[in-house]
Amino acid sequence: MPPSAPMNRRIVMARRPAGIPAPEDFRLDTQAVPGPADGQVLLRTLYLSLDPYMRGRMSDAASYAKPLEVGDVMLGGTVCRVAESRHPDFAAGDLVLAASGWQDYALSSGKGLTRLPPDLAHPSWSLGVLGMPGFTAYVGLMQIGTPKAGETVAVAAATGAVGSVVGQLARLHGCRVVGIAGGPDKCDHAVRELGFDACVDHRAANLAQRLAAASPNGIDVYFESVGGAVFDAVLPLLNRHARIPLCGLISQYNAVPGVEAPDRLPMLMRLALTKSLRIQGFIVSDWYGPLYREFSRQMSDWIADGRIKYREDVVEGLENAPAAFMGLLQGHNFGKLVVRVAS
Amino acid sequence: MPPSAPMNRRIVMARRPAGIPAPEDFRLDTQAVPGPADGQVLLRTLYLSLDPYMRGRMSDAASYAKPLEVGDVMLGGTVCRVAESRHPDFAAGDLVLAASGWQDYALSSGKGLTRLPPDLAHPSWSLGVLGMPGFTAYVGLMQIGTPKAGETVAVAAATGAVGSVVGQLARLHGCRVVGIAGGPDKCDHAVRELGFDACVDHRAANLAQRLAAASPNGIDVYFESVGGAVFDAVLPLLNRHARIPLCGLISQYNAVPGVEAPDRLPMLMRLALTKSLRIQGFIVSDWYGPLYREFSRQMSDWIADGRIKYREDVVEGLENAPAAFMGLLQGHNFGKLVVRVAS
Repeated sequence: MPPSAPMNRRIVMARRPAGIPAPEDFRLDTQAVPGPADGQVLLRTLYLSLDPYMRGRMSDAASYAKPLEVGDVMLGGTVCRVAESRHPDFAAGDLVLAASGWQDYALSSGKGLTRLPPDLAHPSWSLGVLGMPGFTAYVGLMQIGTPKAGETVAVAAATGAVGSVVGQLARLHGCRVVGIAGGPDKCDHAVRELGFDACVDHRAANLAQRLAAASPNGIDVYFESVGGAVFDAVLPLLNRHARIPLCGLISQYNAVPGVEAPDRLPMLMRLALTKSLRIQGFIVSDWYGPLYREFSRQMSDWIADGRIKYREDVVEGLENAPAAFMGLLQGHNFGKLVVRVAS
Repeated sequence: MPPSAPMNRRIVMARRPAGIPAPEDFRLDTQAVPGPADGQVLLRTLYLSLDPYMRGRMSDAASYAKPLEVGDVMLGGTVCRVAESRHPDFAAGDLVLAASGWQDYALSSGKGLTRLPPDLAHPSWSLGVLGMPGFTAYVGLMQIGTPKAGETVAVAAATGAVGSVVGQLARLHGCRVVGIAGGPDKCDHAVRELGFDACVDHRAANLAQRLAAASPNGIDVYFESVGGAVFDAVLPLLNRHARIPLCGLISQYNAVPGVEAPDRLPMLMRLALTKSLRIQGFIVSDWYGPLYREFSRQMSDWIADGRIKYREDVVEGLENAPAAFMGLLQGHNFGKLVVRVAS
C-alpha cells in the first residue's frame, strides 16, 4: 500500500477497565481506509459524541445492551460526511447522523443512518441538545417526571448534556428548578445562563444542608443520572408522590462493589412505600417514534427562541478522545462533550 | 353507675413495640358505654379488621399517617351496627362500615361512615375482598402493575387478603401467576383453590432456585407487600420493564435497623436502570373515587360468578385481637384476618 493512501485511525478497547478507565484500557490502531462494497457508503467522521453510558458498555456486567469485547472499536454516536457512496440513497457529501464509533472512517449499509440538512448551522448539536441527550431529558422529565407548575424539580449533573436540558424544560413548565453540579463555575452557569432557581455544588461541604436550603418546599421530581452522595442528599427531601426518572448512575459506574455498610435497600423501599414514590429507570432507545418527532420540532423552536440554551465542550482530535472520556467520568467537562474528528 | 350498665371494652396501645409487638404493648380497659350527643350515633362493633399497616402506626417513625400515641385505642376498620342514633341520616339497626378501632362501642359524627345493605350475606367481606384489601389489590395490580396477557405476575403473601386477590385478578387477565406463601398448606391452597399456576414456600430451603424454576420466563410484575428475603429472591428474575407495585413491607416492620452488610441500595438503583424497572409505592386511600365504584361493581360480579374466591380467618372475641395481630405479623393467619366482636 503506498504511503500516501488515507489511513483510518481507530480507538479500540484494549482491556476492560477496573474502576475509572485508564489510558492503557484504550489503544489507537491504524488501518487502511476500507472501500465500500456495492450497497455501502464510506463515512468520514466529523464529530464524535462522548457519553457516560459508554462506560457501562466497557463492562461485562449484565445490562440493557451487549458489552464491548476487547479489541472492538469504542462505540459512539457521530456526525459524518459521506466520503464515497455505492448506495442508491446517499451521495458523496451528504451529512448524516451515525453510530460509527471512535474512528476516522467507517463503512455503513445505510441502516441506522439519519440524513441531516446540508446547511445545518451546528451539526454537532445533533449529538446533544437536538439528539440523544436532549431526547433523554425530554422523555425522562415529561413522560416519567410529569412535572406540574409550582413543583420543585431537582436535577443532577445540572450543566451536562442531559441535566441542562432537564432544568430548562422544567423552568419552561413553571417549576422551581434546583441543580446539583460540581464546582462553583458550573453552579454559576446553571443559575445565570440556564435560569435555574438555585444550584448546589456537590463538591463543597454540607451538601445535604445546602440542598435542603435550596429546596424549601421539598423535591417533587428528582432527575437522576448520578447516584451516590447526590442521591443520598436528595432522599430526605423527597415529597409524597415524588417521581425519580433514572437515566444513569455515573458516580457508580467506576465504584468497586461490596463495601460493608448498613444495607440501605430496605430503607429505600420503606421510603418508596411511605412516600408513594415512583422510581423508574429508562433507556431512551425504547422511546423513539412519534415522541421523537414531537421533541425535535419543539426543541428546535425553543433553541431558535433562545428559551433553551446549549453549551458544548469541544475537544480537538480523535486521539484525545480517551483522555476526554476519562475526564467526563470525573465531571471535568463543562457542557456536552464532543470530539471534533475532522472539519 | 349500676353494675348492669353496658361496658365498653377498648384495647389501647400500652407502649410502643420494639420489634414484634408483645402482649405488654396492648392493654384492655373498660369504660362505660358513652351516650351519643345530638348529631352523633353510637356504634356497636360486629367485626374488626386486622391488617399489617397497623404495625406502622404503632411506630413513631415518619410515615404517610400520624402515629398512634401511647394510650390511644388501636385503630382499625370495622363493620358496626348503629346501636343508638341522634343523627338524621342513620337509624338504630343500620349496618355501616366504620373505622372505629379495637373496641366494642364508639361514637361517630357520621363522617366517614358508609352504609352497607341490611341483608348483606357476609358483612365482614366489606373489610376484605370487597373493601380496603381488595381495592389495594385492584389498584396496585391494574393501575400500577398494568399486567398484559401472557406476562408473569409474582405475588407475595399469596393467600393473604391482598395477595389472594392480586393473583386471581392476574389470572383473569391472562397472566401466569406465581405465588409466594409461608408453608405447604398455603401453597396448596393458592394453586388448588385460587388457581395460581405455581406457589413457592418461602419457609423452605432454596427459595431463589424454586422461585426461578416456577418463573421460567422471568417476572414482569411483582406485587410487593413483604420485602426481605422474598424481595431478594425476586430481584434476579425481574424482566426488562418489570413493574413493582409496593403496598407493604411486612417483613421489615419489626426489623431492627442498621445491620452491617453490603449496602445494596446502589445495586437496586443499577437494576432499576439496566432493566428499566418501575418501583412504585402507593397508599390505597389516595385512589378512592370513581375507581372504587368500578372495583366494587366488578368485584361483586366476580365473587358472584365464583371467579374470585375468598377465605377468611375469623377470630372470636375482641380480647383475642392482640394475639391474632401478633400472629398476623408472623404469617400465622390463613386468609383475611378479622375479629368477630359481636354477632
